[in-house]
This record gives sequence, structure tokens and C-alpha cells, in this order.
Amino acid sequence: MAPPVSLDTINPKVLECEYAVRGEIVTLAQRLQDELKAKPGSQPFDEILYCNIGNPQSLGQQPIAFFREVLALCDHPSILDKSETQGLFSADAIERAWQILDQIPGRATGAYSHSQGVKGLRDTIAAGIEARDGFPANPNDIFLTDGASPAVHMMMQLLIRSQKDGMLCPIPQYPLYSASIALHGGSLVPYYLDEATGWGLEISELKKQLEDAKSKGITVRALVVINPGNPTGQVLAEDNQRAIVEFCKQEGLVLLADEVYQENVYVPEKKFHSFKKIARSMGYYGECGKRGGYMEVTGFSPEVREQIYKVASVNLCSNISGQILASLVMSPPKVGDESYESYSAEKDGILSSLARRAKTLEDAFNNLEGVTCNKAEGAMYLFPRIRLPQKAIKAAEAAKKAPDAFYCQRLLNATGVVVVPGSGFGQVPGTWHFRCTILPQEDKIPAIVSRLTEFHKSFMDEFRD
Amino acid sequence: MAPPVSLDTINPKVLECEYAVRGEIVTLAQRLQDELKAKPGSQPFDEILYCNIGNPQSLGQQPIAFFREVLALCDHPSILDKSETQGLFSADAIERAWQILDQIPGRATGAYSHSQGVKGLRDTIAAGIEARDGFPANPNDIFLTDGASPAVHMMMQLLIRSQKDGMLCPIPQYPLYSASIALHGGSLVPYYLDEATGWGLEISELKKQLEDAKSKGITVRALVVINPGNPTGQVLAEDNQRAIVEFCKQEGLVLLADEVYQENVYVPEKKFHSFKKIARSMGYYGECGKRGGYMEVTGFSPEVREQIYKVASVNLCSNISGQILASLVMSPPKVGDESYESYSAEKDGILSSLARRAKTLEDAFNNLEGVTCNKAEGAMYLFPRIRLPQKAIKAAEAAKKAPDAFYCQRLLNATGVVVVPGSGFGQVPGTWHFRCTILPQEDKIPAIVSRLTEFHKSFMDEFRD
Repeated sequence: MAPPVSLDTINPKVLECEYAVRGEIVTLAQRLQDELKAKPGSQPFDEILYCNIGNPQSLGQQPIAFFREVLALCDHPSILDKSETQGLFSADAIERAWQILDQIPGRATGAYSHSQGVKGLRDTIAAGIEARDGFPANPNDIFLTDGASPAVHMMMQLLIRSQKDGMLCPIPQYPLYSASIALHGGSLVPYYLDEATGWGLEISELKKQLEDAKSKGITVRALVVINPGNPTGQVLAEDNQRAIVEFCKQEGLVLLADEVYQENVYVPEKKFHSFKKIARSMGYYGECGKRGGYMEVTGFSPEVREQIYKVASVNLCSNISGQILASLVMSPPKVGDESYESYSAEKDGILSSLARRAKTLEDAFNNLEGVTCNKAEGAMYLFPRIRLPQKAIKAAEAAKKAPDAFYCQRLLNATGVVVVPGSGFGQVPGTWHFRCTILPQEDKIPAIVSRLTEFHKSFMDEFRD
Repeated sequence: MAPPVSLDTINPKVLECEYAVRGEIVTLAQRLQDELKAKPGSQPFDEILYCNIGNPQSLGQQPIAFFREVLALCDHPSILDKSETQGLFSADAIERAWQILDQIPGRATGAYSHSQGVKGLRDTIAAGIEARDGFPANPNDIFLTDGASPAVHMMMQLLIRSQKDGMLCPIPQYPLYSASIALHGGSLVPYYLDEATGWGLEISELKKQLEDAKSKGITVRALVVINPGNPTGQVLAEDNQRAIVEFCKQEGLVLLADEVYQENVYVPEKKFHSFKKIARSMGYYGECGKRGGYMEVTGFSPEVREQIYKVASVNLCSNISGQILASLVMSPPKVGDESYESYSAEKDGILSSLARRAKTLEDAFNNLEGVTCNKAEGAMYLFPRIRLPQKAIKAAEAAKKAPDAFYCQRLLNATGVVVVPGSGFGQVPGTWHFRCTILPQEDKIPAIVSRLTEFHKSFMDEFRD
């Protein structure tokens, strides 16, 4: 008999879903890495550089020492009052670990917590939000999650009833949105960011796309805004944000504000402002693998909030180390604490180095023939546009690939640098881009720039019309 | 205008979903706990005892020291080569931490891993499965997940296309199954466990229910088996398991084997056998809050496996501490290792104490008027049946509650003991049960037994026909 499960008999929504940052190009990169390991010297490069995903520690970024001290002490509290511990850990990390353990019922970091996360940790996060925004935050509106992804799934699950429910999403967007909308069976309603004005978000474009969706019988339920942008790296201006909030109010849309990169702003003229008043926001610090995060849910009725709580409950709770980390991010060492200076130095060191790397890569891209690249004001990405010769587009067609995917695959094969084709994020039809993280360590950037430049030149020489 | 989101406009699948172990009774327990904190002495008991959920550490179970030593060292590896560390940590924990860090690309525990989890940790788990079963396990078939819940969601998402797709589930069942089937829009096809034969799983019952579902136009896709049982605590016999596998083969069903309690077997005459040949299994050790777990997927075509990988990728990866813990559970200290004796003593101490607690509670339930309780052969639960007087059933009707929910609420209000009504798990219509964990610390059991006994007596006195 036929196998019980085949591509013809699985959920078609799973088939439709795509997730470019872990797609075909990454599978190729993993294969090349295996070949390189088995046979050093078999490739024209010595190592694979994963610029496909915002994963700082995989490229050598060191974690903040204070965070890791506290995590280790919370995981193994029986050393807290041993004398050797004083020599190994900073005094404020020891104190913070005691505080956090006091907040956890039974001091049990291996126990399931409340479905929304440990109440004491949510208190700390609410206080951190309050300090950031100057508006009160309610710990009961906060849901601690295993990273941003489950929070996005939860909201899509809540809001999408059928294909007739639409979600306004930026194009380009981070593919978590297109993937989760597909998995939950809704419709992505695109609004295009304006590349010519530094990936500007125009209210007129939102209105146009909303009307267009309505005319097709789609009920738009929510507006997704990613700020700072991913993959586009722009930081929204405050008056633009106000207009967006007003638009959501008028049109009765839930505002899903993805603010995971709130700490990553690189240009002095731009500042991060949260969408908190009617938004949910999510925390972030480069500790991706710890799967920590929070979602603040405001403006919902108590009954709807109950339903969100129920969906969270079906997974029981998010991981406790991630919960602790989210509370540390929202309440780092303060002036006067033993760890304050080293913490500040580590943090400033990371952010200023990221700013330098962003600038160097941006300049390098802008120096390539036919390439233009907007500034990375925030987040961790550049999204350069490449104008490909007709001959390259024909060659891509012959290889049954999108032209940008064709370019990215050639780049990987020639240099070991992994970037993600723009088609995975969406782009204005007929334009081609790729997303490149700014995360390789600073001493590697010059080599990357020269490899990129050399590859691009020979690619253009090969395909120039 | 109307609020954009109301109970009328959210996804009806969310509304339909129920999750009893975190339902109304737990909300009441949390309120009573708050009242007790604000006003000590305000209740007829001093503390709330959460027997509603299998959460050992929240009730005082200590974690295995070796596991926590390794976790702490992996979280903060910069102390690994300090001299003070030798005094604080066992030598084999230090060695294991070095090994694990070597397996993690870039030694970065804060980096996203492969979507299925770190390859080296999957190698360790595959070797552990092989040692357990005597059959090879492929690390590429293993998906590391944030606990069992996301693994179950993934499979439901893959297999359910519409309400016409059915999942054979035991009744009583753990409500993760009914909840996730409801969220993904499928149909639960019940098969009843036979209470009279110690919650026996009869193939004839599977066949009957399968035919019944078919006659209603439902395509049954999979069979869920929980072994050891939850909430029922039985351990399946090997020949019964063989017949179940044969049934799945004949009927073309995916076998979803939930084996999270594989280490928890309390009776010498029963042994755990995994369903590994065509099954997926999930790991477990009482470290619930760490959200670690694995799913082994075998017998699927490479294309379908790819689709599972893609769904896993949309969440990028599970948390790294949980991944490390899953590898430790499947590869604990061995004879000769410094930690072996303390590890064995801790583990045996926990398991033999659980066996004693199970027996004491089982006897206590069987001594209550109108109550019968099967043996807990494994897992962490008892599921006693209560025969309620007609007057109690009438009183429950008047209070608009299921009779078992009415009983459980009265029990909580009188004693502070939280148990979950059987209606949350499913039961033969007209019968009433509740689920009680065997997890309160041993020194508290006598007091629980006398409180329960006293409550039950006065309840029966009040309502006796």
C-alpha cells in the first residue's frame, strides 16, 4: 500500500510555507563546509562565513559576562554560598542570582513556571519597559516566550480564521511573517517600503494596499511593522510612528510591532521609540540560542487576553534560562554596581564595532558596479540592490533559479560567504537584492570586502551584456 | 467603532481549544494563594499543594547535581580553567562541559543552532537511544525541541489538513493532544482505555473506533499512544506494543509515541520498551522548566522529513540549555566517573521515593468511600474514579459545573490540594475521575492523605443520597 504520509497528503499549508534564511542556500553552505572539513583546500576559500542570519555569537561575538555569571549561578545555586564562588563571580552577579531565585517559586529553575513566565521576572521587565518609555507597564500584559517566533505564531493563530483574513506586511519583510501567515492559512497583504527614501514607510502606500485587499474581499486584521527594519535596517522617525498608530486606530487594525532590534541603532540622528501604547514589543540581545523574549500585549479585552493566555498555556511555559535572560536585558547592571564598567565596555564595544562594520560593508557594496545600498541605521543587516545584466538573468532562467538566488549561489561557491537572496524577503518585482548581516568579526571584514569585490567584478565580466 | 479584536472575531479554533491542567481550577488556586499570602490564616489550610501538573521541582524535588554543574559551566565557560572551579565542580562535570563546548560550533551557547539542534548533541542522543534499544539511531532523524509540546504541534501541523483528518487518541488523554488537534483544526477520534483491566489498550477498540470514524468520512492519519500513560499511569506490555505497531502498519497510520515518562516505571514486573522502530519518542527528566526534549522521526520519506525540517526552521532552533540537558539525560555519568555514585543515589532516591508515594496515595484513594484507583505502574499520576451521590451531581448541575469539577473545587477550597477533573482528560460518559500527581514531598504525604480523607468523608456525608 501507499506510504501513509507523502507530499500529496500532508497539510498543504506546510508545503506553501517558505523560510529563506534557512533555505536552499544554507543547505549548500553546509555541504561545502563538510567538504572543506573532509578535504581541506578543496574550495577556493578556507571557511564558510554565515552572513545569512543574525547570529552574532556564531561569528565570534562574546556574550556579556554579567549575564552569563547570573545564568550559571541560577542553574547551579548550590555553589552560591561557597567561598570559592566569590573569587570566580562578581559580587553583583551573586546578589542578582539570589534576587532572581527569590522571585522563582520554590527557587526551582527546573520547574514549569506560570504560562506567561515567572511573575517576578515579568515585574522586572515591566519596570524596565517603564524606565524606557516613561509609561507604566503591567506585568500581566507580558508574555515571556522562547524567542520572538512563538510570539508571532501565537498572534497569527489568534487572528487568522481563514484565507480571507489578511496581514499587512512590509516588503521586504523577515520571512518569519510570510512563513507563519502561510502556516496559519491567512493572506499576506504586502506594503512596499520605498528604497529610494531609505526604505521609507508611507501611510499612502498602507492605505492603497488596504483598499486593494478590501476590494478582493480580504479583511485586514493587523499591521506588521519591523523597527529597526529587517532586512532593511532603517529606523522609523517618531512622527512617522505616530501616523502609523493613527492609521491602525482608524482602520481597526492590531499593530504587531517587532522591536527585537531596539538596542541596535547606529546613527546619532535616529533614536529608537517603542510602539508600546497599542503595541506589543519583543526583547533581544544577541543571545539567540537562549530563546528568550517577551511580548507585551495591550489594548485587548480581558476575554481576548484570556484566549492568548490559553494558547500560551498549551506549551506550558517558555524556558527559564531565557526568561532570566530577558529580565537581565531589561535590567542590566547600573552605575555603582561592580559589573557596571565591564558591562558598559562590552556593550559599547559591540555596538560601536557593529556601527563601523555596517559602514565599511555599506561603502563596499556601493562601490560595486550596478549595486546601491541604503544605510544600516539599526538592526544587523544590509539589503543592497543589484542590477544584473540580461545575460545573467538568462543564465539564471536556464538554471531555473531567481536571478538573485543565482548570484548568491555563485557568490557562495566562489567565496564561502553566505547571504540570502532578496526573493526570500520580497522585493519590488523586477528588482534584485540580497541580505547580508554585519556580524563577521571586524578583523575579517577587509578580507570579505576584497573577496566580494573580486567575485562581483568577475561575475560582471562574465555576464556583462 | 467596535474593538478590532473580540471573541467573535478571533480564530474559532482558539476558542474551541481547552487545556485543563492550566484551566479554571488553577486560576482559583492562584487566587487562594494570593489571599493566603495577603492574609495568613484566612483559609482552612496553610499552603496550596499543586498536584495538578507533573512539575517535580515546584514541589521540592532537587535537580540532579551533575546536570546542573554541566549547565552552569556551559553557560559561563570562562571559569572552566580557573583553579577555584576545581573545588566547586566535579572533575567529570568539567570534562563533560569541555566536550559539549567542543561539539557546539564556535563554542557559542548563545548562538542559534541547526534547526534540529546541535549536531554533536544529537550524536550523543542517538548513541543513547542505540544503547537503550539495541538498534541504530540516526542523528539526522532527531529533532531537539523546547519540551514535548512543540514536537506534538509540529506533527499535528504536518498531518492535519482539515476537520476530515482524524487522530486516534486515548481517553483519558493528556489534554495537549485534544488542545493541539483543536488548534490545528482536526478531529479527535477517541479510543477508550479499559479501566477494569488497569487502563488496558485493546486492539479491538482501536479497530472499532477507526471503522466508526471512517463511516463518518474521517480519514484517520495517526495513532497517539502515551506510554507510560498520562493521566492513567499504566505501562504497556511488549506483546501489546507489537500488536499496536502491526495495527498501524496495516491501517497506514503514523504512530505518535509519547514516551516522556520512559524513566518512570515503579513496578518490577513491568519494563519500558520504546516504540522506536516506526515511532518518534521524546526525552524527559523532571527538568520541565528547561524546555528540553527530542523527537525521533523514522519511516518518513526524505521529502516529508524536509517539510518537518522546514517547520522546525521557522522557529530557528530550540533553546541550547534544553538541548544540552537532553544530551545529558541520554548520556548520564557512567560507572567509574567521579559523579556516578552521587548521580545514581540521587536518581534512585527520586524513583524509589516516587514509587512509595504512588503506593501510599493509591492505597489512600482506594480506602475512600466510592473511590477505586488503578495502580500507577509508571509516569507520575494517579487517576482515581469517584462514584458521586446523585445529590452531589444535582448540586454540581445547579452550580453549572461538571460533577468532577465540582468535587475538585470543593477539595481545593477545603484543603488547598489542587487536582484536575477527569473531564479535562476525557472519560467514559457517566464516570467521574480526577488526576493527582504523586509529586508532593514524602514528608507531606501523610498530611495530604488525612486532609483528603477528612474532606471526602464530609463531602459524602453532605451529599449522601
